[in-house]
Amino acid sequence: MATMRDVAERAGVSIATVSFVVNGTKRVTDATRARVEDAMRELGFRRNPVGAALANGRTRIIALLFPTLERTLSHTAVAFFTSAARRARERGYDLILWPIGSDIEHIDVLARGGLVDGVILMEVKLDDPRVAALAVNHVPFAMIGRTADPSGVPYVDIDMATSAREAYERLAALGHRDIAYVYSEGVQYDHGADARSRQAYREAAAAHGRPATLIPCAEHPTAGRELGERFAAEHPDATAVILLNEHAAPGLLAGLAQAGVRVPQDLSVLSLGSSAYMASMTDPPLSYLRTPGPELGELGFDAVLQRLTAPDEAPMQALLPCEYVPGDTMAAPRG
Amino acid sequence: MATMRDVAERAGVSIATVSFVVNGTKRVTDATRARVEDAMRELGFRRNPVGAALANGRTRIIALLFPTLERTLSHTAVAFFTSAARRARERGYDLILWPIGSDIEHIDVLARGGLVDGVILMEVKLDDPRVAALAVNHVPFAMIGRTADPSGVPYVDIDMATSAREAYERLAALGHRDIAYVYSEGVQYDHGADARSRQAYREAAAAHGRPATLIPCAEHPTAGRELGERFAAEHPDATAVILLNEHAAPGLLAGLAQAGVRVPQDLSVLSLGSSAYMASMTDPPLSYLRTPGPELGELGFDAVLQRLTAPDEAPMQALLPCEYVPGDTMAAPRG
Repeated sequence: MATMRDVAERAGVSIATVSFVVNGTKRVTDATRARVEDAMRELGFRRNPVGAALANGRTRIIALLFPTLERTLSHTAVAFFTSAARRARERGYDLILWPIGSDIEHIDVLARGGLVDGVILMEVKLDDPRVAALAVNHVPFAMIGRTADPSGVPYVDIDMATSAREAYERLAALGHRDIAYVYSEGVQYDHGADARSRQAYREAAAAHGRPATLIPCAEHPTAGRELGERFAAEHPDATAVILLNEHAAPGLLAGLAQAGVRVPQDLSVLSLGSSAYMASMTDPPLSYLRTPGPELGELGFDAVLQRLTAPDEAPMQALLPCEYVPGDTMAAPRG
Repeated sequence: MATMRDVAERAGVSIATVSFVVNGTKRVTDATRARVEDAMRELGFRRNPVGAALANGRTRIIALLFPTLERTLSHTAVAFFTSAARRARERGYDLILWPIGSDIEHIDVLARGGLVDGVILMEVKLDDPRVAALAVNHVPFAMIGRTADPSGVPYVDIDMATSAREAYERLAALGHRDIAYVYSEGVQYDHGADARSRQAYREAAAAHGRPATLIPCAEHPTAGRELGERFAAEHPDATAVILLNEHAAPGLLAGLAQAGVRVPQDLSVLSLGSSAYMASMTDPPLSYLRTPGPELGELGFDAVLQRLTAPDEAPMQALLPCEYVPGDTMAAPRG
């Protein structure tokens, strides 16, 4: 069995530096980390997380809280989890998914049991009771998303206001004047990303002197299909749609096709907060604003790790915009 | 705060019966359970899992092991997890998702840390090292899926052999003689469901005196789209496809449409192991054999709970077939 000393010699660094890398207890430069990790791989060095947990009272387990019993995990949400889990593994941690939502009494189990060293919150509401429950229990945490007032609390989030505005402006620049907005029915209005995006859409419409048309749609392809089939009848003036409902997107396109609505000739569709995975499912392929899911998953893990390793530093707070990815579902309006 | 005694009085049962329901320590009839749970709701009775864990050395946490770092969680896999988590909650347990795959050293962390009372395995291989690792560590577990020889080990699984055979026979009955099979590239051949399904396809083709055409496709809609676009050129004789690759299904249909291949007139498509969620994404809606995901999630939890509450009973072993759901992607071959 290779030891930390062996790794240190091979990498040409001190044993302390190897320990920093193995235990994530202090930051080292990327170059040094790479050298240490190469040496660990070459020597077949294996971390011993159980020993470490026994030694310092930590489990090296981080829980990502996602309310799966209240909201279906989308492919994009899976990407957050997977990238955070991969980052955790790189840092010598385990990341688990814990389905805790509005059932905050379960945070007591999690906190008092000493099962996890820290927590990442997802699906954060503007006023989220989980934040207070974690703070009261002194559980280190970071949010992917953010509350109405996140001062002093670590978070990484999508800049949904900027992205929703960009969606509107891109369609307006093509000549669209009647731009509708499809949101996820059943998502409570105080869901941070949803609330900020709707508000930005309303403001953009107002700035253009146009009405806001907000259309609810359940988070399921069947609901998207049904909306697509009746869309032209119910919204005859709309020439473009912004869609913040990843579950419904492919169904919506299928339903529009069934109803004889041509995309983009008759209707432009821009999916807000989506991924190549969802966009390539449809015919034609969706134009979308890409959710920075992998980036936010990694940063979310880094943000909570910082609470463990450098609790006195200012908390990480980062806003990332979505990135526009052209597809074949946007064009100028007819006529 | 309502006590167990209050609940027992309201429900008209003994305190012991309430305890059986609260702690899942013994089975009661569904009717009795319903009466006790109604009483708990009416009185606002709250379980105290922390107290229970302290009292009996158990955490009332079950881990579902899914190798998310090796294989993308599909919507159907999410359904397994969600239904198992819901069942766990009903029984007073928490279910967490732990991304452990071939990295079995992490099972030591899980086992020796005493973090979880039991484990559900998913994505089980014919020869799965996690099974031995759990057994050696005396961790109660059940499989969703099964190894090559699961004697004595609790499992619930899809009857993939029967379902693949049914898929072939349904297409053959329509008159198809050249039926291809698209599988998930990158899934190791010893993945139980995948191996059993391929084998049944080969046998069905042989029984009809027809060749087996196995086509790999990566687990992503883009790969499905690319396959759809080149399908007719590469497989000019095929008039039907069985698809065991949920990630690729909607992309495949989109790619076929792009290439001018009409479904079902030119090519029938039958998705094996899918859900209404995926099927309603496409135009036309997919014909599919429905994965009994919610049922298996619940049964999987029951199977591991039985190991905790009645370890001397014979382990639960159950095989559930997929159920055919007609869509608009199957027809007789042309000519």
